[in-house]
Amino acid sequence: MSEHPTAALDDVVHQRHRLGVLTIASEAKRVEFGYLRTTLELTAGNLSRHISVLEDAGLLEVEKGYEGKRPRTWVTITAAGRKALAREMDALRALLERHDER
Amino acid sequence: MSEHPTAALDDVVHQRHRLGVLTIASEAKRVEFGYLRTTLELTAGNLSRHISVLEDAGLLEVEKGYEGKRPRTWVTITAAGRKALAREMDALRALLERHDER
Repeated sequence: MSEHPTAALDDVVHQRHRLGVLTIASEAKRVEFGYLRTTLELTAGNLSRHISVLEDAGLLEVEKGYEGKRPRTWVTITAAGRKALAREMDALRALLERHDER
Repeated sequence: MSEHPTAALDDVVHQRHRLGVLTIASEAKRVEFGYLRTTLELTAGNLSRHISVLEDAGLLEVEKGYEGKRPRTWVTITAAGRKALAREMDALRALLERHDER
């Protein structure tokens, strides 16, 4: 594999909205869909698509339920999700270090 | 604009192959197409598409010429390209700092 730090990046994780979802999800036990939508300023449709990509890749788990009478969706990062995010962060760190040394 | 660091990322710059092209181009006066292709392990077609996106956005300049009898293509990062890359790096740094503090 190429030595360049960007070669270690995985599009599933690296895409900026998905990177936002994973980093927020890594900061809590679970995160509510509405919170993600407003924090990342995404449409519900766009956020749902990104969550599905992450869920299909096994990086997130999606839970549907109710808060009182209101339907709610929560996402939780999986162990595989934490590992994938750690690889992304390591690659970004290497990219920044290389860029700062140029 | 959302406070989350990923909201400051620009897809034109953030896409991993384009990020690779810009960071390598920022390390030299100009960079030869073949070097980019092998370093980033891209096909010529894929690399050309990414270079066109960056050129259309005014972040790269493309120069065609000859080395001896061999046709050559070089890319040079523009001032706008350096600014865009600096914004990307600042956002990635903020993302890493936030992630490390969680």
